[in-house]
Amino acid sequence: MKKCIETILLSVTVAMVSAQEPVVIEKQGHFSVAGKTIQREGEYDNSKFVGWATQEEKGQSYRADHAFVHYQIPVQPKKLPLVFIHGYGGSGVCWEMTPDGRDGFSTLMLRKHYSTYVMDLPGRGHAGRTSATTTVKPVADEMFWFDIWRIGVWPDYNKGVQFPTDSVSLSQFFREMTPDLSDHRQDVTAIDALTERIGKNILVTHSAGGFPGWMAAMQNQKVKGVVAYEPGGYVFPEGEVPAPIEGLTGGVQGIPVPLEQFMKLTQIPIVMYFGDYIPETPSEKLGDENWRVRLQMGRKFVEAINRHGGNATLVELPKIGIYGNTHFLMQDLNNTQLADLLEQWLDVSVGQTQTMAKAFSSTEQELIDISNAKWQWMSEKNVDKLESLFHENAMFVHMGGSWGKEAELETIKGGFIHYKHADIHDVSVKFTANIGIVYSNIHLTSMVAGNEVTFPFMVTEVFVKENGNWQLGSLVFTRLLERTENQ
Amino acid sequence: MKKCIETILLSVTVAMVSAQEPVVIEKQGHFSVAGKTIQREGEYDNSKFVGWATQEEKGQSYRADHAFVHYQIPVQPKKLPLVFIHGYGGSGVCWEMTPDGRDGFSTLMLRKHYSTYVMDLPGRGHAGRTSATTTVKPVADEMFWFDIWRIGVWPDYNKGVQFPTDSVSLSQFFREMTPDLSDHRQDVTAIDALTERIGKNILVTHSAGGFPGWMAAMQNQKVKGVVAYEPGGYVFPEGEVPAPIEGLTGGVQGIPVPLEQFMKLTQIPIVMYFGDYIPETPSEKLGDENWRVRLQMGRKFVEAINRHGGNATLVELPKIGIYGNTHFLMQDLNNTQLADLLEQWLDVSVGQTQTMAKAFSSTEQELIDISNAKWQWMSEKNVDKLESLFHENAMFVHMGGSWGKEAELETIKGGFIHYKHADIHDVSVKFTANIGIVYSNIHLTSMVAGNEVTFPFMVTEVFVKENGNWQLGSLVFTRLLERTENQ
Repeated sequence: MKKCIETILLSVTVAMVSAQEPVVIEKQGHFSVAGKTIQREGEYDNSKFVGWATQEEKGQSYRADHAFVHYQIPVQPKKLPLVFIHGYGGSGVCWEMTPDGRDGFSTLMLRKHYSTYVMDLPGRGHAGRTSATTTVKPVADEMFWFDIWRIGVWPDYNKGVQFPTDSVSLSQFFREMTPDLSDHRQDVTAIDALTERIGKNILVTHSAGGFPGWMAAMQNQKVKGVVAYEPGGYVFPEGEVPAPIEGLTGGVQGIPVPLEQFMKLTQIPIVMYFGDYIPETPSEKLGDENWRVRLQMGRKFVEAINRHGGNATLVELPKIGIYGNTHFLMQDLNNTQLADLLEQWLDVSVGQTQTMAKAFSSTEQELIDISNAKWQWMSEKNVDKLESLFHENAMFVHMGGSWGKEAELETIKGGFIHYKHADIHDVSVKFTANIGIVYSNIHLTSMVAGNEVTFPFMVTEVFVKENGNWQLGSLVFTRLLERTENQ
Repeated sequence: MKKCIETILLSVTVAMVSAQEPVVIEKQGHFSVAGKTIQREGEYDNSKFVGWATQEEKGQSYRADHAFVHYQIPVQPKKLPLVFIHGYGGSGVCWEMTPDGRDGFSTLMLRKHYSTYVMDLPGRGHAGRTSATTTVKPVADEMFWFDIWRIGVWPDYNKGVQFPTDSVSLSQFFREMTPDLSDHRQDVTAIDALTERIGKNILVTHSAGGFPGWMAAMQNQKVKGVVAYEPGGYVFPEGEVPAPIEGLTGGVQGIPVPLEQFMKLTQIPIVMYFGDYIPETPSEKLGDENWRVRLQMGRKFVEAINRHGGNATLVELPKIGIYGNTHFLMQDLNNTQLADLLEQWLDVSVGQTQTMAKAFSSTEQELIDISNAKWQWMSEKNVDKLESLFHENAMFVHMGGSWGKEAELETIKGGFIHYKHADIHDVSVKFTANIGIVYSNIHLTSMVAGNEVTFPFMVTEVFVKENGNWQLGSLVFTRLLERTENQ
């Protein structure tokens, strides 16, 4: 038995948080960025009531052309947040939901400890007020998009498609679509304004959001990487624009930008993902055609970036054995797999990895440091420091009894127990949900009621994060049986 | 010392989660409800590409008139979720943000463990596709709303107003406004559809969202209460409609409904809150006038409900010493105070309180039951049950050593330690963040390597909630010093 136990090492591991665990949010909310204020001339007459549906505009203002941003910041966020940019026909919710009710892509990345900023670009979703005049009417178009977005060829689903084939999911999917009330010229400005507000970030774009993504990345050096899911268009250095590629849906042509501007894209890591059902040769299907030309132009784009010394990667998912993805890959049934892929890319290319090279991760080390500081403060009877560390509900479990925060502080302050020195032989940290537990194998030398004693203990400390600070929620001493050999 | 310790009782308390703690989300996402599908006649031609901006509608469909819902479910949610319904001129984000970046009202209630369902009513925000044809153009109206919503009398802020008076906040506030693309007839249907989908709930309405709130509550018995912040209109039993109240902004008149229908409102608790700056007598200010008539009609509405045996409360905030609230009270600088008020009302009137009458709350009892079951399973060597209870990263701290899940199960299965009986003298539960810690003062009788021993222990069990289930994350034995008297 003894041997059995002793061979079990207190190995140091970082628990991976599974997709079903709760998401622990430090802060969340919405705000708007960019836009302008239209100011009508004259003086506003406070006493004039014209009616609810009409307005006397004189002297009044109107904010327009802003973007709306929904953000969530998890506890222990990764260094760089992700900025999600939607494509044509919808809003930011395409990143935040799936048609069949599974986690949205932004929630998946939140679970991986990325802060998420999901944009509604100007004129879409919550960013409805614009400077444009637009007439919106119902135009039946869902079959067209079913085809274009490679869900299938209406009414047939693509074989093996990663899209839920029940009618409820399809209905949820189409109801994500929402009109664009903008003049289509405000996207880059809005992305830039968000970057200025939140600082360094990674852009994650989809489809028609791809092009403003490249533009924003060239414009602002705080964009530290771009992840593009099936981008719709590309930039090339002037004089290096490839011949347009013809196709049934209008084909695609590269947009020239000055070389100096293009070179900005060579200074950040870039990855593009394309899904399934994209042929190499011309097809009669609109969806095939639309993405055939964009994938082929995308290859040239990646070549151009890398030719100029950049670091761009094109991932054609079927080529790495991932099949069935539609154009809305981030909502597809295998979106957790795509989130894992993205996480790996971010780890490697953007250096977002929690390095495993050293013995402890930064969070583990943080807790160990706090635990060590605590032994020091106990030794020094530094009750002020301990008071701020101990959680209001903390319990202290000793051989002599169990008590709460106040009594523990009193015990230390009054000298009933003086924790003189903890000789730490081994320490490990385990994380579950949003708590960290530090297990320390120690010999503790202390003065208890005037007598100096030294005992071997396993000390269990439960740390919980509140107000952004780790607090000690439980401190438990387990006196170990003495052994003949040294610990 | 001993006396000091022994007088400290292991009292049972439920920790209140402060506003700055992380929000722990079990599940979140978006979905749409209600709406219809417009289906054009004919057969869709998959090969026809007309262009991106135009469509050949033949055989195509168009989903319209749905509402969009953003939901978040916290861990340990209260029984009834809150459904938030916005008013005129905006979308659901009015509940999810504040102009100055503090927690939105829905986040405040989430922190109080309420599930939140925030609606974008048809034609607003993410619910942009409707069956109506609407022309949207910039109409300068912000000064009008500044006045109507009692922020002040443009350009002056009301004295003591609970609205941030910096220009950035005002700009954030106005940019929450978004067009309504609907025909204004789909709101009640959408609220009803959401209620059908999620079941029993409490409606929390604002302003013009108030009237559809009453209608939805009368229509669906699963609405178990209504909280109305400054509702814009009211229903009355036919024959009991008060005289219209005239005012500068058009006044207000009650809408008659059959008595039988009205009686539904007498069967659920209702509370209405009105803010500051509402005079009793006619005024020359539009904002004063707009809410003077609605408050006065609201008093008659509450009287009518209570006259018919209902339970409606009107809270005029200045009358209880809360001053400075605008029409957007849920975003005001004192919105945490209003959230506390709401929580109290929900506790008392809807029975959402975690009752303190019995010795343990339901969650505490749940953990104690699990802890007891665990002692039973240990005694029975029921390794299967224990395996599902023990967290993958669980540690077991004994006098003889510390080890992980697998080794503990092996120890129990192989009989190295047989936990025969735990005589529990006292038990308490402490909650911090999303964990629960059970402290049990026991005498444990066990067979260790063939010898029966009985020791007094303080057993510390750390439970974490994963996948909706409590799992044991740490089990620590602290052997207590023997005492002359019984424990």
